[in-house]
Amino acid sequence: MWTRSLLSAARDGTVLLRVRQRCSTVWRETHRCSAVVYREHSHNIDTLRMEQLPLPPVKDGSVRIRMLAAPVNPADLNMIQGSYPILCPVPAVGGNEGVGEVLEVGSDVTSLRPGDWVVPVDAGFGTWRTAAVCEEDELMCVPKDISLLGAATIFVNPCTAYRMLNDFQTLAPGCTVIQNASNSAVGQAVVQIASALGLKTINIIRDRPNCAELVDELQSLGADYVVTEEEVMSSGLHRVFEEVPKPKLGLNCVGGLSGGLVLSNLDYGGTMVTYGGMAKRPLQIPAKSLIFQNVTLKGFWLTRWKRHRKEDKAQLKAMLDAVCDLMRAGQLSTPHCVQTPFQQYTHALRATVQSHRRKHVLIM
Amino acid sequence: MWTRSLLSAARDGTVLLRVRQRCSTVWRETHRCSAVVYREHSHNIDTLRMEQLPLPPVKDGSVRIRMLAAPVNPADLNMIQGSYPILCPVPAVGGNEGVGEVLEVGSDVTSLRPGDWVVPVDAGFGTWRTAAVCEEDELMCVPKDISLLGAATIFVNPCTAYRMLNDFQTLAPGCTVIQNASNSAVGQAVVQIASALGLKTINIIRDRPNCAELVDELQSLGADYVVTEEEVMSSGLHRVFEEVPKPKLGLNCVGGLSGGLVLSNLDYGGTMVTYGGMAKRPLQIPAKSLIFQNVTLKGFWLTRWKRHRKEDKAQLKAMLDAVCDLMRAGQLSTPHCVQTPFQQYTHALRATVQSHRRKHVLIM
Repeated sequence: MWTRSLLSAARDGTVLLRVRQRCSTVWRETHRCSAVVYREHSHNIDTLRMEQLPLPPVKDGSVRIRMLAAPVNPADLNMIQGSYPILCPVPAVGGNEGVGEVLEVGSDVTSLRPGDWVVPVDAGFGTWRTAAVCEEDELMCVPKDISLLGAATIFVNPCTAYRMLNDFQTLAPGCTVIQNASNSAVGQAVVQIASALGLKTINIIRDRPNCAELVDELQSLGADYVVTEEEVMSSGLHRVFEEVPKPKLGLNCVGGLSGGLVLSNLDYGGTMVTYGGMAKRPLQIPAKSLIFQNVTLKGFWLTRWKRHRKEDKAQLKAMLDAVCDLMRAGQLSTPHCVQTPFQQYTHALRATVQSHRRKHVLIM
Repeated sequence: MWTRSLLSAARDGTVLLRVRQRCSTVWRETHRCSAVVYREHSHNIDTLRMEQLPLPPVKDGSVRIRMLAAPVNPADLNMIQGSYPILCPVPAVGGNEGVGEVLEVGSDVTSLRPGDWVVPVDAGFGTWRTAAVCEEDELMCVPKDISLLGAATIFVNPCTAYRMLNDFQTLAPGCTVIQNASNSAVGQAVVQIASALGLKTINIIRDRPNCAELVDELQSLGADYVVTEEEVMSSGLHRVFEEVPKPKLGLNCVGGLSGGLVLSNLDYGGTMVTYGGMAKRPLQIPAKSLIFQNVTLKGFWLTRWKRHRKEDKAQLKAMLDAVCDLMRAGQLSTPHCVQTPFQQYTHALRATVQSHRRKHVLIM
């Protein structure tokens, strides 16, 4: 992105001056933005600063947008901390997901018009900002008849759930899916998308004080079975399997013991897809699961999936369309978010570091 | 198999009498065989007995063979112990692999002729016997221009190696394969078949007193790199990867720590195939290997592969032909076997229980 290279040049504060001189016009609001910038990788939230960054002029193939809303995802923090497999060159703007509105397009731009809502295709966009200028192909249009929060959070969690339910096993209505981390944003999307597809879900949760409440909440989203890790360990799922077939697909975001509960309850020939490691403990895989139960273990990372499809966006568009259809049909709700004014970004970041339970969305 | 049901009827010893009465002919050698029988699942080798079993007459679609040689494989012992995923109804004859010679064929038999060498297609045949009568489709012909020991041991270990090298990743000459248990029968076959295919092999072995000798032995079979677990853990494989690409395929027969060494050295997008769990310890799989390294974990069990192809033997024949071609070309040697006269089966079984290092083959 142009903005990123300008940001890099702005390290010593001289670029603003140079831009002003080159433009030889009155400095206007459109030429800069506020952005949450990190200049080094650190676990300390206080190293992030709200900065004024210059925006380049809109050229033939580029687009100027104003950001409307951008969530704080755990992966955003990992990137800032330097512990994510892809990192932006510092200084960088935080945030990878969000929705913006197109304000101005270059003369060669064909897919976007002023007023459109757009989401960045790739990680590393730096969505915690008030505005950006970027190439047309860095953005995709999303319909404006879904909610703002839905649009701001559509391209990571619901799409991860959508892909995992579609890409690893052929699942006909009536088939079963088992997952852990069922109360996560992806877990809730899995429940809802699976329900819309006519699939049955077995949802493993950690035992907790408000367990009954959470069970109700997940069931209201369409969960067929909600069981605690302790229940699965002590009683197994025999009763469940009297009613529904064993799952061909398991989704694991936890690892360790919890991942083992997903694995050991898969049907013969099933696939377990790992998309997170919240427990920070490795999966323990007995040889017999692989050899005699013919189970396959795969991983899923939406960022990689999207990057492989950057050149030809048909699959990206089909996925967004499908997820938007589910949202419009009321089959996929927006997860409960805490909306935080952009200026209070520190509060949202700190809350996310302390707990991933509630998603914070910065409202620009 | 008919013999198995007759054996079952022979539990109380009455069937021999009934067969004699029905035939109303002089009892001949062709109507019975000696077989190593287990009447219960047990870890005690002494519960196996050499018994005389009746053989049914050869009918239209059946074949009478005399067994020539049959190995004692670890899985044979697991079946006797009752700890294998497929078990024969007891009483049963031990042994799953071996080569026999066709003595007599029924009038409808088209694929076999007297004098042919044959191997049983499926596990559970009960190869520790002097003779058998079975259906034509329970057997496949093997050429007689390979060694007797080669024919007796062709259908488990070399075929497992062959399939794993062919079915999980597209490997062009120059690609690398990494494996543990490199000195096992499968491991040695992997070294040789990979070498014939122009693949490079990285072979992990346990540290041991005669390490240099084993390294020489594996290198003489075509191993490119032979490294101990300790060497991989302390120094990694950086030097190896200066010369050959990182492996797209890893083969794991050990599990535990050793399986982790295979996994962690795979290339991005690689596949680790597990076909054994010698260490009796689970694999430890970090989430990042699956999510960010895009590694796939699969299992392989030749018995299942063969069972899925029992009805249409074209793929079975193609595999046997390919492995026999390698044997004839001198590219796949018969592993060192201890040949044991059939009557001394107890010795061979006991030796296999104590150590899997040398394969024992019963010679009938």
